[in-house]
Amino acid sequence: MPKNALYAQSGGVTAVINASAWGVIEAVRGHPAHFGTCYAARNGILGVLEEEILDLDEEDPLTLAALRHTPGGAFGSCRFDLGDLKRDRAQYERLVEVFHAHDIGYFFYNGGGGSMDTAHKVARIGDELGYPITAVGVPKTIDNDLGMTDTSPGFGSAAKFIATVVREASLDVESAHTTSTRVFILEVMGRHAGWLAAAAALAQEYDGRPPMLILFPETPFDLGDFLTQLQMAVRTHGYCVVVASEGLKNPDGSLFSVAQSHDIYAYTQLGGVAPRLAEIIRQETGLKLHWSVVDYIQRAARHLASRVDVQQAYAVGRSAVEGVVAGEHSFMPVIRRDSDRPYRWSIDRVPLEAVASIERGLPPAFISPDGYGITAACRDYLRPLIEGEDYPPFDRGLPCYPRIRGVLRPQRCAPFRVESPG
Amino acid sequence: MPKNALYAQSGGVTAVINASAWGVIEAVRGHPAHFGTCYAARNGILGVLEEEILDLDEEDPLTLAALRHTPGGAFGSCRFDLGDLKRDRAQYERLVEVFHAHDIGYFFYNGGGGSMDTAHKVARIGDELGYPITAVGVPKTIDNDLGMTDTSPGFGSAAKFIATVVREASLDVESAHTTSTRVFILEVMGRHAGWLAAAAALAQEYDGRPPMLILFPETPFDLGDFLTQLQMAVRTHGYCVVVASEGLKNPDGSLFSVAQSHDIYAYTQLGGVAPRLAEIIRQETGLKLHWSVVDYIQRAARHLASRVDVQQAYAVGRSAVEGVVAGEHSFMPVIRRDSDRPYRWSIDRVPLEAVASIERGLPPAFISPDGYGITAACRDYLRPLIEGEDYPPFDRGLPCYPRIRGVLRPQRCAPFRVESPG
Repeated sequence: MPKNALYAQSGGVTAVINASAWGVIEAVRGHPAHFGTCYAARNGILGVLEEEILDLDEEDPLTLAALRHTPGGAFGSCRFDLGDLKRDRAQYERLVEVFHAHDIGYFFYNGGGGSMDTAHKVARIGDELGYPITAVGVPKTIDNDLGMTDTSPGFGSAAKFIATVVREASLDVESAHTTSTRVFILEVMGRHAGWLAAAAALAQEYDGRPPMLILFPETPFDLGDFLTQLQMAVRTHGYCVVVASEGLKNPDGSLFSVAQSHDIYAYTQLGGVAPRLAEIIRQETGLKLHWSVVDYIQRAARHLASRVDVQQAYAVGRSAVEGVVAGEHSFMPVIRRDSDRPYRWSIDRVPLEAVASIERGLPPAFISPDGYGITAACRDYLRPLIEGEDYPPFDRGLPCYPRIRGVLRPQRCAPFRVESPG
Repeated sequence: MPKNALYAQSGGVTAVINASAWGVIEAVRGHPAHFGTCYAARNGILGVLEEEILDLDEEDPLTLAALRHTPGGAFGSCRFDLGDLKRDRAQYERLVEVFHAHDIGYFFYNGGGGSMDTAHKVARIGDELGYPITAVGVPKTIDNDLGMTDTSPGFGSAAKFIATVVREASLDVESAHTTSTRVFILEVMGRHAGWLAAAAALAQEYDGRPPMLILFPETPFDLGDFLTQLQMAVRTHGYCVVVASEGLKNPDGSLFSVAQSHDIYAYTQLGGVAPRLAEIIRQETGLKLHWSVVDYIQRAARHLASRVDVQQAYAVGRSAVEGVVAGEHSFMPVIRRDSDRPYRWSIDRVPLEAVASIERGLPPAFISPDGYGITAACRDYLRPLIEGEDYPPFDRGLPCYPRIRGVLRPQRCAPFRVESPG
């Protein structure tokens, strides 16, 4: 009898992570000689530890197929990392207990860098604890900072949303700048890397105008120079659109948004780069301004997904399963760029240990010499990732995102107390 | 020889104001016996005073037709109100000078309540200054606060965007609430009326869940009760999605977002309801949270326009012209709701003087008794306004929003110094 498969989601979710889920589920079901039933854990690895195993046979097949166009993490995600294989032995013994109770032989973990580390630890259970489990990673992250892959599913759709709304809001600001707002600031995600901020520059393609200034986490923030550039842009264009990464850093390396109450502007900690920049600009220049923080909206905006991104999310899910069928283990499917123009890509597979600890920043060669824009190389890299639309179905004016029923399998193990991830 | 027509845009722009522009231009050109050439003023009434008259015959016909799907104000907008007809006589004499120089007999002004007042003043120029001018208003505002009309073009699309992104971000928050963010706050526009905040409740339709709490400008903010409701929602659902209007008010009627540095939380003035709420919730409950401020993005989001809204924007533009052809003057086309289910609407016309000073708030009967949600009557009102999609064309992953060339007609009048609107 073939062993069962278990799929789980981890970390910050994206607009297309469920497309990967569907890729895994569909492919597992397509290989009945190799796999038993396909289950999903609720809330990632936490759901395995807590024996919350969802029975996908209880779901309406249409709901499962709709995962392809539903944002968020349909099975629940978590921010929780497994402990050390030697020191936190009880956690691993618990995983074996639950795997064994549900006859699970295959584990597909869909997440970012930290989750790949967890997947790698699970993959070692066979060697370390003697329970035969094949563990595989499935990549996702809007931050695009996973190593060994040309891009990560989730990034392209967030990038497309950001570039689109920057283009739209810029037209708005441009319309009335002579008597109204002259500066617009958009804050985007990316605590450690400026990929999403860079994507905003794609909005310029049409005629080389806004956003005029991009503030990357990679470029230490020089307030004086920024204000000079801002005022120059306002003189030239009449207005200035600024895109700022949440990861913007002061010259001393500290985060710009974590202001202390004793600094000269007397801010309390707000965790918002845009409102803080706005206040400084207002005080220093008197220019009328508006600002926006898109936060989770940018990573959940399935209504404007990139078709390429959706296809890649689905493909890495399928490839994870196909790799297992081919006898591989402890790997992560990655996206290879085979050509820029026309854009061609394929799926490859790399060992989990090779990706678990790499964090890929925006290369210096992708940031323009003045530090406020992107280079042609960066544009060539980014452009194909936002290509194509893949609209979800709408009903009465809103996108249809069905929820799974979430029927748990009967628990067979004793309760287990998971230490709070804090 | 028929007189020429002049179209202009005013106030905060929307995702569909250019569809009204196209409605006006196309209809004017369709009645060559009644109208000469169709011009547009740059930056609204300011462009008339400054004699910045755009020659639309210089534009590519495809660019003009693309106005139907291009957000922002293609001809430039302004925040500027005409002075008193008796006291500020020079302004009106200047208008007559410019109208006369370009043989303009018809003026179409596309804006909100303040702009309708301006249109009405222009309409009185014939009686007051003896120059024959037919002035007509064309409604727009995302705030939905114009009187005499069932809704205003621009609102439906902003409402659709808000309801969609709330639904999407809620799925994101729901995914990982057990180990991550438990409270998400979205700030929406609407300084004086809670229409846009109310629209967020449409996201609930699917299964009656998020957003759990809506904060309206119409309901004085009771911090203690809000925190109780918030914690109750977190206990019930595991997380809480809050939608807050930028116009949220303290019990004393002052704006919540205009905090003083001497208050108990030591804020400086940030003009952001969401970050301020976030800080209070963090201090009072310790719950992990995220927040978003969509600002101009919500009113520029043409990529997700409501088809009904686009059709109505176009229809009020056409109706303005058709009314003039029928011999009417000093009016504004309005949208009448002929039936709820199925939704049927038609265009009527009302005198400008009847709309110029009315501001329509959210009726008390549209807010649920607890103050944090909407009633069935409100839902029935809102639902049809977001119906249907009307995607713009995309090129290489981004929406195509062509800009007009903006060729000015030669100036024939002496320069005129417009006093700064401040």
